[in-house]
Amino acid sequence: MGYQKVAFLLTLITVVGLAVQCNAGVTSTYRRRLAASVDMPLDADVFQVPSGYNAPQQVHITQGDYDGTAVIVSWVTADAPGSNTVKYGKSKNNLHLSAEGNVRQYTFYNYTSGYIHHCLLQNLEIDSTYYYAVGENDSVRQFSFKTPPAIGPDVPYTFGLIGDLGQTYDSNSTLTHYKANQDAGALLFVGDFSYADNYPNHDNVRWDTWGRFIESSAAYQPWIWTVGNHEIDFVPSIGETVPYKPMSNRYPTPYCASGSTELFYYSVRRASAHIIVLASYTAYGKYTPQYQWLQAELKKVDRTKTPWLIVLLHSPWYNSYNYHYMEGETMRVQFEAWMVQYKVDVVFAGHVHAYERSHRISNIDYNITNANCLPVPNNNAPVYITIGDGGNIEGLATNMTEPQPSYSAFREASFGHAIFDIKNMTHAYYTWHRNQDGNAVAADTMWFTNRYFNPTNDS
Amino acid sequence: MGYQKVAFLLTLITVVGLAVQCNAGVTSTYRRRLAASVDMPLDADVFQVPSGYNAPQQVHITQGDYDGTAVIVSWVTADAPGSNTVKYGKSKNNLHLSAEGNVRQYTFYNYTSGYIHHCLLQNLEIDSTYYYAVGENDSVRQFSFKTPPAIGPDVPYTFGLIGDLGQTYDSNSTLTHYKANQDAGALLFVGDFSYADNYPNHDNVRWDTWGRFIESSAAYQPWIWTVGNHEIDFVPSIGETVPYKPMSNRYPTPYCASGSTELFYYSVRRASAHIIVLASYTAYGKYTPQYQWLQAELKKVDRTKTPWLIVLLHSPWYNSYNYHYMEGETMRVQFEAWMVQYKVDVVFAGHVHAYERSHRISNIDYNITNANCLPVPNNNAPVYITIGDGGNIEGLATNMTEPQPSYSAFREASFGHAIFDIKNMTHAYYTWHRNQDGNAVAADTMWFTNRYFNPTNDS
Repeated sequence: MGYQKVAFLLTLITVVGLAVQCNAGVTSTYRRRLAASVDMPLDADVFQVPSGYNAPQQVHITQGDYDGTAVIVSWVTADAPGSNTVKYGKSKNNLHLSAEGNVRQYTFYNYTSGYIHHCLLQNLEIDSTYYYAVGENDSVRQFSFKTPPAIGPDVPYTFGLIGDLGQTYDSNSTLTHYKANQDAGALLFVGDFSYADNYPNHDNVRWDTWGRFIESSAAYQPWIWTVGNHEIDFVPSIGETVPYKPMSNRYPTPYCASGSTELFYYSVRRASAHIIVLASYTAYGKYTPQYQWLQAELKKVDRTKTPWLIVLLHSPWYNSYNYHYMEGETMRVQFEAWMVQYKVDVVFAGHVHAYERSHRISNIDYNITNANCLPVPNNNAPVYITIGDGGNIEGLATNMTEPQPSYSAFREASFGHAIFDIKNMTHAYYTWHRNQDGNAVAADTMWFTNRYFNPTNDS
Repeated sequence: MGYQKVAFLLTLITVVGLAVQCNAGVTSTYRRRLAASVDMPLDADVFQVPSGYNAPQQVHITQGDYDGTAVIVSWVTADAPGSNTVKYGKSKNNLHLSAEGNVRQYTFYNYTSGYIHHCLLQNLEIDSTYYYAVGENDSVRQFSFKTPPAIGPDVPYTFGLIGDLGQTYDSNSTLTHYKANQDAGALLFVGDFSYADNYPNHDNVRWDTWGRFIESSAAYQPWIWTVGNHEIDFVPSIGETVPYKPMSNRYPTPYCASGSTELFYYSVRRASAHIIVLASYTAYGKYTPQYQWLQAELKKVDRTKTPWLIVLLHSPWYNSYNYHYMEGETMRVQFEAWMVQYKVDVVFAGHVHAYERSHRISNIDYNITNANCLPVPNNNAPVYITIGDGGNIEGLATNMTEPQPSYSAFREASFGHAIFDIKNMTHAYYTWHRNQDGNAVAADTMWFTNRYFNPTNDS
């Protein structure tokens, strides 16, 4: 082969190589009908107050301990404090167990909340359906949930994923489609709940409507809560200077069970997954409680018991939309190295009202003076998924940075939800479902291979 | 000129150019005698409890409002709550004014504090010496302070600077030398107070000794407080899970006066300076209270009234020691662009137990995909000064990154203090005094030209 041929071949390889790298990301060509996202009116069906005097409303549950044998049941009564008791049992017609909770109210500017009840059910049997009832006299309401299997490396389990839900017609589509995806055992919610803060004085009535809206799912399976910026509710102009007041009163988390000292960062283990929830708007610099907690918690992760290490947070570290671009940098530069060191499988975020999935990349070699600050492929790194596409009142993020950066594998400006379906210790099947297609169609899919047991190039 | 000569000349230019660039920063050749920093014993003179039943101790003052016509007086009584009254006036022998404060106690593990008093003196006349007395009966103690001139663009004023003080023999040298520098009207303290957290269970007795130690200065001029990591005092292992308990009980700040809602970030204006105090360990991401507050506060800065814009924080953004290297990144990436946009004159930090001064540089062009992540000269940028060299028990930071990075103008591993002496609206003379030389010798100096009125290349 002559010199010229070799040179040509090298040029070709280089060009092809570059082309592959540049075209690796996909910007979906799907274009949904763009219309304003409008909140459902106060008298919408999904917001209806259940009938009966002081009937429990806004019923929702979350995991109540580290390993899934406890559940926190929460509900609101509007007319009177009423009972704090939850009756429960494994037979629908024999709720022979009972637990006693507590009740609270809070005010927010000119709003006074209903009576908010929280009750912890402990020592539940694994892998069992429980029925539970709240309320008194003629207004008792009954629901059910299923506890997860015992913690174990090869235990299949299916998680749902929703972020930035709000309470628009689009939100309703998202929740409806998610509920039709029957197989999820728990929902990982990546922050931004009701968007009540878009109303004058953060009208907390919209926290109540949201609680009633999600009940049809959240009363039957635990929603694992991540805090978002729309939960901060910090409004000095009306005297509301204690951040997180509505969320912290309404949506408890089992933070103590994982040694956390604050409501918004904690861990739960469920089946074969260790799920770490981080707080994007609570201090995380070195020495802070969140930093100290995460440092200790990552050391406690035992991949031989929970092979799948999942992190939830609100403000994404890798995002190629123009909206909220680089807002996650301040947290990324603090924690990204740990995500790689501990081989986190996937980091789910919300915040950006669209969908995006990254390649496995990292950007952790920068030392100020070396200019090494580009994301590079890294098989020890998580996949970063932005799923802030629940459908809230603020509408879709449709403007993207161009060209699609090399870290971005797939992006599409549609509303939807996702399913992370753990098959065994080595494989999980992930699907993203845009609302337009219903739940039957997966618009983005990926076979995850576990970073600890099978760290192949899967992205 | 032949080819070889041209090539040689180019090589020479390149080498010289590199040499100039590499030598732009100075690593001081001064080597102090290295010895462990040892805390002074509990019976040291500077820790002595004043005589008399329930005599006020740990007397200190800080600015009490936005513009310097108020002072918060704080003190501790050990035997009984005693009086909350401060008597004061402009005549030493006629304290005809009085103000009523409040008293509190706190517990920390097995420690119970004395009775901690705070009292706000308001509506003081400008540029005046006030005498004040605290205590009752035979145990009255009298002190004095001088109010600053009215806010104005051409008002000379001198600030002292100390960080990471602690209570060792070296700390005592620092404070002694600072006090001998007679001309400072207020001290800017950049965090890390007592280092009580180095003792078992964060023995809060060492908060008391520190309060007595600094009284000889802090009772006579306001110390402007910045929070450091040694104030977090977060110790879940002994049940102390509320951060900042000792500091927040002992060292008030006038945070409300600048519209802040939390104790640790706030502003004061004094003479011709607008001083912004940031909290390195409180959340600062977008949407957080600190972020919102700083965003609003920077817009309120009026350089025609206060030409000098000074920022205090604990964890430095530019630091070329190996200790705490890059710890400030998470805050830098969030706020550095604002420092440049608003032409901050100087950012003072502590944390690293040594001294360093930067050139005027910025690193704000990075956008993830462009690799523009090196600090570059920028005349709109602050000078960054690390002055965590107060002399605490943890000793000096002596290991530096090599070669000295281009952003570093001068660095030396010695204990000391500094003086920022505002001459007028365009010039300020800055001096750093290492303890070994006493206060008469300036080991590092810089004529600052004001970024708003005279933004020349002064670094």
